[in-house]
Amino acid sequence: MTLTVGVLGYRFMGKAHANAMARLPMFFPDAPEIERHVLVGRDEAALADAADQLGFETTATDWEDVVDEVDAFYNLGPNHVHAEPSIAALEAGTPVLSEKPLANDLQSAERMAEAAESAGVPTATAFNYRFVPAIRYAKNLIEDGELGEIRHFRGTYMQDWLADPEAPWSWRNSEEMAGSGALGDLGAHTIDLARFLVGDVERVSGHLQTFVDERPVEGDGDETEMREVTVDDAYSAQAELEGDVMATFEASRFATGHKNDHSIEIHGSKGSLKFSLERLNELEVLREGNRGYETILVTDADDPYVEHWWPPGHVLGWEHTFVHENYEFLSAVDSGEAYHPNFADGLAVQRALAAIQESDENGEWVAVE
Amino acid sequence: MTLTVGVLGYRFMGKAHANAMARLPMFFPDAPEIERHVLVGRDEAALADAADQLGFETTATDWEDVVDEVDAFYNLGPNHVHAEPSIAALEAGTPVLSEKPLANDLQSAERMAEAAESAGVPTATAFNYRFVPAIRYAKNLIEDGELGEIRHFRGTYMQDWLADPEAPWSWRNSEEMAGSGALGDLGAHTIDLARFLVGDVERVSGHLQTFVDERPVEGDGDETEMREVTVDDAYSAQAELEGDVMATFEASRFATGHKNDHSIEIHGSKGSLKFSLERLNELEVLREGNRGYETILVTDADDPYVEHWWPPGHVLGWEHTFVHENYEFLSAVDSGEAYHPNFADGLAVQRALAAIQESDENGEWVAVE
Amino acid sequence: MTLTVGVLGYRFMGKAHANAMARLPMFFPDAPEIERHVLVGRDEAALADAADQLGFETTATDWEDVVDEVDAFYNLGPNHVHAEPSIAALEAGTPVLSEKPLANDLQSAERMAEAAESAGVPTATAFNYRFVPAIRYAKNLIEDGELGEIRHFRGTYMQDWLADPEAPWSWRNSEEMAGSGALGDLGAHTIDLARFLVGDVERVSGHLQTFVDERPVEGDGDETEMREVTVDDAYSAQAELEGDVMATFEASRFATGHKNDHSIEIHGSKGSLKFSLERLNELEVLREGNRGYETILVTDADDPYVEHWWPPGHVLGWEHTFVHENYEFLSAVDSGEAYHPNFADGLAVQRALAAIQESDENGEWVAVE
Amino acid sequence: MTLTVGVLGYRFMGKAHANAMARLPMFFPDAPEIERHVLVGRDEAALADAADQLGFETTATDWEDVVDEVDAFYNLGPNHVHAEPSIAALEAGTPVLSEKPLANDLQSAERMAEAAESAGVPTATAFNYRFVPAIRYAKNLIEDGELGEIRHFRGTYMQDWLADPEAPWSWRNSEEMAGSGALGDLGAHTIDLARFLVGDVERVSGHLQTFVDERPVEGDGDETEMREVTVDDAYSAQAELEGDVMATFEASRFATGHKNDHSIEIHGSKGSLKFSLERLNELEVLREGNRGYETILVTDADDPYVEHWWPPGHVLGWEHTFVHENYEFLSAVDSGEAYHPNFADGLAVQRALAAIQESDENGEWVAVE
Repeated sequence: MTLTVGVLGYRFMGKAHANAMARLPMFFPDAPEIERHVLVGRDEAALADAADQLGFETTATDWEDVVDEVDAFYNLGPNHVHAEPSIAALEAGTPVLSEKPLANDLQSAERMAEAAESAGVPTATAFNYRFVPAIRYAKNLIEDGELGEIRHFRGTYMQDWLADPEAPWSWRNSEEMAGSGALGDLGAHTIDLARFLVGDVERVSGHLQTFVDERPVEGDGDETEMREVTVDDAYSAQAELEGDVMATFEASRFATGHKNDHSIEIHGSKGSLKFSLERLNELEVLREGNRGYETILVTDADDPYVEHWWPPGHVLGWEHTFVHENYEFLSAVDSGEAYHPNFADGLAVQRALAAIQESDENGEWVAVE
Repeated sequence: MTLTVGVLGYRFMGKAHANAMARLPMFFPDAPEIERHVLVGRDEAALADAADQLGFETTATDWEDVVDEVDAFYNLGPNHVHAEPSIAALEAGTPVLSEKPLANDLQSAERMAEAAESAGVPTATAFNYRFVPAIRYAKNLIEDGELGEIRHFRGTYMQDWLADPEAPWSWRNSEEMAGSGALGDLGAHTIDLARFLVGDVERVSGHLQTFVDERPVEGDGDETEMREVTVDDAYSAQAELEGDVMATFEASRFATGHKNDHSIEIHGSKGSLKFSLERLNELEVLREGNRGYETILVTDADDPYVEHWWPPGHVLGWEHTFVHENYEFLSAVDSGEAYHPNFADGLAVQRALAAIQESDENGEWVAVE
Repeated sequence: MTLTVGVLGYRFMGKAHANAMARLPMFFPDAPEIERHVLVGRDEAALADAADQLGFETTATDWEDVVDEVDAFYNLGPNHVHAEPSIAALEAGTPVLSEKPLANDLQSAERMAEAAESAGVPTATAFNYRFVPAIRYAKNLIEDGELGEIRHFRGTYMQDWLADPEAPWSWRNSEEMAGSGALGDLGAHTIDLARFLVGDVERVSGHLQTFVDERPVEGDGDETEMREVTVDDAYSAQAELEGDVMATFEASRFATGHKNDHSIEIHGSKGSLKFSLERLNELEVLREGNRGYETILVTDADDPYVEHWWPPGHVLGWEHTFVHENYEFLSAVDSGEAYHPNFADGLAVQRALAAIQESDENGEWVAVE
Repeated sequence: MTLTVGVLGYRFMGKAHANAMARLPMFFPDAPEIERHVLVGRDEAALADAADQLGFETTATDWEDVVDEVDAFYNLGPNHVHAEPSIAALEAGTPVLSEKPLANDLQSAERMAEAAESAGVPTATAFNYRFVPAIRYAKNLIEDGELGEIRHFRGTYMQDWLADPEAPWSWRNSEEMAGSGALGDLGAHTIDLARFLVGDVERVSGHLQTFVDERPVEGDGDETEMREVTVDDAYSAQAELEGDVMATFEASRFATGHKNDHSIEIHGSKGSLKFSLERLNELEVLREGNRGYETILVTDADDPYVEHWWPPGHVLGWEHTFVHENYEFLSAVDSGEAYHPNFADGLAVQRALAAIQESDENGEWVAVE
């Protein structure tokens, strides 16, 4: 049986997921057979071009027509449209993959997680960095106890595309459409990795900042229209994770010189590790009995997912994380088995994000339920 | 018009090129339309499976049936079968891409280059590392004079898959099938980059060594059969490139801990650069006026080939070099325009390889004509 | 005129400062002439040996006999003995250098700063990392506006000597003797660099943790006596520095694999920089117009302090920071000119430390006056 | 008994050795007691200033008056004055330390080694990089068999102070005074480390190049006088070391951006290591059972020489190598025990240097006796 997939959104994320699906047959021959069935969007001309380029059979301008007709629904739209189509799909019994963060506010996230729970079908929050081979390798090290008892988690996500005050306004600068700024867009990834690798967030103290209050809207006119920035440009947080782990999180769109630098450091009683997304084939590991960090190139045949690809030393790219993610999610859709990170995981991250925001507002530590 | 491609070889390189062709429509929409038409091999069962997985329409067990029926012929077999099918294809007027090194001896390479010259169609020697964005970026820097007059080129290619004396014998250990060992397999890439980035090799002094003289043949039997290693495990060379550039080349399959570490360093009168294949998204550049190497992440929208892929900081992998290479070669096939590195480039590298080998034998510097 | 120096403390810091003074004549010929006059301690035998090795003329077991008889008094004892001897010296009009942190509580620090103010003589809080050439270079970059408007400061100080729960108890684990743990010992350095390079700390949110509650006391007896750990093993903090700069600070004695890793990262609107104490000859700078960090080896003749030492590329060590610090402080003592970081700077750091501790206790952000 | 030391030369090397001697009492209390007795030079005024600053009791303008009156004679002059004073000292039974390379031609080096042999007193060729703690650590690893059978040695020594064609002429550009250029000045260090860490050089193939043929002489006059460069600006060599080890050596004064970058790489059947002088506190080691290089900070208490200095993580500088070297040499002078690297070691390096030069001239491999 071929699984039909409907995808809402055809820009950056649409291309990343379409490519991932397209590559499964050659590299993951045991993946279920997939049809990129229908691409959903509003601008019919652009949509038709995208469907052609991304390999979709058909297009639709109304997600309501789609969510109950496909075997899986991918919601890749802006954060504020994550909730309604996803919930509708789930109510129709259709498995859903949603881009991250799960929603643009906690209430929507809770409704989505409840719908997932009720539907009893696989759901995914698209925290693709769980699917980096080096991160999986790190997860195995930690689960095997090779780092001992974890003491510290440190995660930073650095970008610089807003460092220029003249960089144009986009939906990502709007609280209404994005929920938050660096916090939700970047921090969600960091907090998901903290949960994946170490444990749940128990309490947080947060700090949000907007360095530039308004930005020009790109347009044809003679006059530059300025629009308000209603989200954070950067955030930092302190946290306590379960098991008395001290954690710090930070993200910025003002970290000049950094493009997509998501870095993780973990210290345990026996060892430590470091990871950076811009060198995603590498993991630095301080093992018990060694004195320094060992730079491991995670491209050996028995490293996670690597046997599907190339011989040792032939590095993978960012997009491969989407292939692994699609493989796992679509296999779960096919088999009905559980999948993580699901909507419940997405909700747990959303609770931490909301607590950081609340803490920033009231100046106090906030417990994450 | 759709170009039909016939491919001889369906293992590592077959998969790399098939994947590259499969990805063109989504990422290089201006590439010619391609049909992976026929896959050529000897083992019919394995071939059929491969054709299915790699997306070929048909299969053939005899390359002679194929070379005059396709719009382009890819010769991805072991080195000793590069010559005959490629020459036959060229005699039929079919453009040919051959894996590197061009041949397993200089005479074959010369015949291939002559056939290419006579045919007047595009040919390619598959030196894919010319198509790494960072290498293209380096090429542009050098052509723009930003490094000044080049003084030094240093290239090393380090692997370790033979460091274990018990590692099994393969065709790559046979002079008859491979021509040479680390020299031809790895050194060919280094010398091609030296020519691409700096200039022709004028004279060389070479040093070849075989550390382990025989290796076990993998098999079912109770007794281990040993077979002789008739190629080098490692080579080094000194060279003079045109323009009084001092060069050193080195490769080894005994560099413990290195998997696919192809590193290049260049010093000019105004600047320097460093590149390593295991961090292929990065280029280290010492610019005039700066004091230290600047680590450039070559993933900006205006970096070579990058606009076809993802936003800044979203790194590419090894396989992307094949996509770029196929894009350029198949576009040349389609348009009839010139393509480099072609068989003449492959021959130039082969002359340097042969001179290194001759120098090792006679203990003297050898001019490369 | 020869300046006589009296030094309280003859272990680690005593050796570091004695060495620094001993090296001045050969490398800083314009420094005032110094006599290592008197070494102060309690154990007469050990003291005599130390004085002999460290080059002191005499010894004394009572600091009260010393503080008014020397031209400069160095207080290198544990934190809880910083206050009384320093104040006595100041009341006698003797310039004082105190090791950091200035005191083990805010009240003592305030008394010390007041005494310094009244005395009107040079004082020093021994934040030696201000005297790393790379840090001075960074300071100049920032003052010249090359990083633009500063947005982020990030400082971590990682050690691992307490990661083993069996590591012995020392005075550094005692609130009474040390005031605090990683916070005061390590965090004081970080906060001083934040003030030096960026600006004053305006408000903080802190998090302290003690991972191991009691430790064995080293001794001869058969039974292991355990003593309580009354200070933090690690701390983290968020802060706002003047000018709306977001800052994060962190230090740990449980960062497995890190020995003395004090790292600083700063992002401004035009550029960024990174520094690590374990590679103290290097500064990574992202300059306006460049795309990546440039690794600058800060050993050129016109780099701060370097002309006194060796040619470019001949790296300095940790101890050289003490030579620079002693040169500056003793020159100030000699000339009567102002010196920084002085006791007022030490007090400013102490206020931030105290605020972090208070914030950890009450769970709220605390303003630093 | 106090050892009296006479030193010929008071510039860069004079300061490095004087500092080393001055630091022994505080850090190496078991070193013999030393008196910096007499400093030898020609310019009386400059000499007197230097003696004052460097802590010498007296001065002399004629080395003949000195060599038989001191307990040890240090010859730190230009290469062409290494032979006569050293031989005279040895004939007087005085132990001699000579800067490297041992001489400016093979014949002088042979005479010096013969004189050392006849005298039967300790001699030193001042290859100070043998005394870097990380290099000693590497030596121990190799001797303990942790790298297995050594296959490859790679050494490069990169500087850039002649990259500018206008950089002034100095004695280092003169064959008469320096013997050779980058080869003798830098290559001597590399070859000494190859011998120290791996084994003797058996045969070589060399390549020397002079990029800029004449340089301006610094002077007061209106006209710039140009003087001929009669030595190499850069060299490369291939070599075979005992035990079938493949080696490559290279040095340049035209490696733009590199100040004093002496790098060593070694691959064995079980492990590999990398070292760079500009990060001299670090050693990168690939151990058996590990997958990547481990960055070891060689500052632990039980690392070579480290217990004399500071706690873990408090890095040493370039000059510390001289302290260790002086400690070992002067202890040998005091005890009469053997010292290495001695003049015989210096001669062995000189033979390799001469063979590289000969090979460059005749275009053939040359055996090193």
